[in-house]
Amino acid sequence: MQILMRSRSPHQRPGRAAAVAALAFLLVGQHAHAQVDPLPCWNEGPARKAVLEFVRAATDPAGPGFVPPEERIATFDNDGTLWVEQPIYTQVAFALDRVRKLAPGHSEWKTEEPFRSILSGDRDAMTRFTIQDFARVIATTHSGMTVDEFHAIIKEWLAAAKHPRYRRPYTELVYQPMLELLRHLRANGFKIYIVTGGGQEFVRVFAESIYGVPPEQIIGSAGKVKFEYGRDGEPTLVKLPDVLLLDDKAGKPEGINLVIGRKPHASFGNSTGDRQMLEWTQAGTGARLMMLVHHDDSRREYDYGVNSKIGTFSEELMEEARRRGWVVISMKDDWNRIFPFEK
Amino acid sequence: MQILMRSRSPHQRPGRAAAVAALAFLLVGQHAHAQVDPLPCWNEGPARKAVLEFVRAATDPAGPGFVPPEERIATFDNDGTLWVEQPIYTQVAFALDRVRKLAPGHSEWKTEEPFRSILSGDRDAMTRFTIQDFARVIATTHSGMTVDEFHAIIKEWLAAAKHPRYRRPYTELVYQPMLELLRHLRANGFKIYIVTGGGQEFVRVFAESIYGVPPEQIIGSAGKVKFEYGRDGEPTLVKLPDVLLLDDKAGKPEGINLVIGRKPHASFGNSTGDRQMLEWTQAGTGARLMMLVHHDDSRREYDYGVNSKIGTFSEELMEEARRRGWVVISMKDDWNRIFPFEK
Repeated sequence: MQILMRSRSPHQRPGRAAAVAALAFLLVGQHAHAQVDPLPCWNEGPARKAVLEFVRAATDPAGPGFVPPEERIATFDNDGTLWVEQPIYTQVAFALDRVRKLAPGHSEWKTEEPFRSILSGDRDAMTRFTIQDFARVIATTHSGMTVDEFHAIIKEWLAAAKHPRYRRPYTELVYQPMLELLRHLRANGFKIYIVTGGGQEFVRVFAESIYGVPPEQIIGSAGKVKFEYGRDGEPTLVKLPDVLLLDDKAGKPEGINLVIGRKPHASFGNSTGDRQMLEWTQAGTGARLMMLVHHDDSRREYDYGVNSKIGTFSEELMEEARRRGWVVISMKDDWNRIFPFEK
Repeated sequence: MQILMRSRSPHQRPGRAAAVAALAFLLVGQHAHAQVDPLPCWNEGPARKAVLEFVRAATDPAGPGFVPPEERIATFDNDGTLWVEQPIYTQVAFALDRVRKLAPGHSEWKTEEPFRSILSGDRDAMTRFTIQDFARVIATTHSGMTVDEFHAIIKEWLAAAKHPRYRRPYTELVYQPMLELLRHLRANGFKIYIVTGGGQEFVRVFAESIYGVPPEQIIGSAGKVKFEYGRDGEPTLVKLPDVLLLDDKAGKPEGINLVIGRKPHASFGNSTGDRQMLEWTQAGTGARLMMLVHHDDSRREYDYGVNSKIGTFSEELMEEARRRGWVVISMKDDWNRIFPFEK
């Protein structure tokens, strides 16, 4: 910039010089930014390296992996990938609390399963619940109100509920390294979608404030809704007990096609429910990144990886990851910090 | 800028002066831009005025109608709102051509309805087709291939097909005033979604190139898809003959909730199929704009408004528009040009 200014002739138009100086300014600014580590909670190692290398390749216009800005889509599973999913899914904790709250109006639940076991706190019986039992609990607690009312119910619950181990609101139990990853991808032009087996409306309530992901970028399991006119004649959307989408396993690429209509270039999951999403992500040209969070840290979080009996991260999934070159993130080894509240 | 430069002392830091000059540049640029009419194809009148006033109100941070940037969502019907829908929907023309193309492999269609009538060109019979007849034609022509293959088939058809009256590709039959409206909304921070009763995948093929609307902003009627592994083991999505979403009438606000999860602040339609979308758009605070395109121009386009026998713009819809303050666009009076190819 010094040289530029010294060589400027007094007859040169000031507008052009100003524009050049402003451009130089911007370039210096960008360079300074690039020197700040975008992933301070990621230890040196293959996982951190894979993220940085993918972003570099996707944004290098001269390289073979270049991804045009409009195609920069990254999809993230939620439970166990962005926040804690043990000892039970947050949404299941919500549904169980909701059954307890609604019980005074349902005397029949005292004898009717699965409600009887929930209300009597029979944990053994609850661990034997079938998919149908859970479906009935979800249908009962997640329908019969408008979408706006449902959001308000969840908001109220989230403000009061605490995780049994960490004694903090569930919304604080997000993984700090993943927040850094979201920020790094966004800073490089990626549009972030959450693709969850959990409920789309449930996740919409908190995803904008805790992850910065807006409602139109949440794909999830969804119940049907019905357009109706309320008592005041105002149009409303009422939640029905029927399922429209099951956004898990093969349902993930199907949901991605419905809502996005493009193949993601990066996908992040932690279980067999994310397998097809990662396979779908890999099946294309340009830079691609497929990562799985492996829960192997019983001290700071939970250990339910391939070495554990409660794992959803099967030996078969680990073998597929090896075969296809997916990157497995060891929470124990790759992350030097798990939660934002840790110092 | 002259004054700024003259007052500059020789000891002033060049960086700051350059930044100020660049800022002045930007402000002058913005001011110059504001003076260009964003809607040259719209005649002076209530429709044009409503658009300009809505955008002004939505973007005025000090006013009562202000809409935060992240909530600036506008939804557009496609057929009859953004492009020509007479004498038949473009997608129906595609489906009929597809039946003719596939006929050599289906000798049974020679006697089987509704295919027999299509293949023999029996227009009288075709005008009597039931919803079920059309559903069968759509299911037959829109399934059994991968999503990518389906896109390629549509692309090939669009490149060759011509509209029977205008003798031009269907993709040229877009309304120039609506292209201006899309541009004006986008320039003011609005995210544009198409919400069509037509097929989501069909519209995705051309919406980015003709309207600048990307695949993730297309909501439409959708068939189910199935995640499968192709012959080479690669994951694919195969189109099934079953319907997942019918994005018409009440299905429009339902589809908007599924894909966007926010209420639009502006909606544009042209028929009874758009009624619920406009009602839903109106049911909220901040600036709101609901508009209906009225086809009353038989000379330049078609006349199938309330005065016509083939109208989908019923007298009842016109009455609701009056009652609710929706703005009706008269193609004859409000638009001084219909198509981009007109000079």
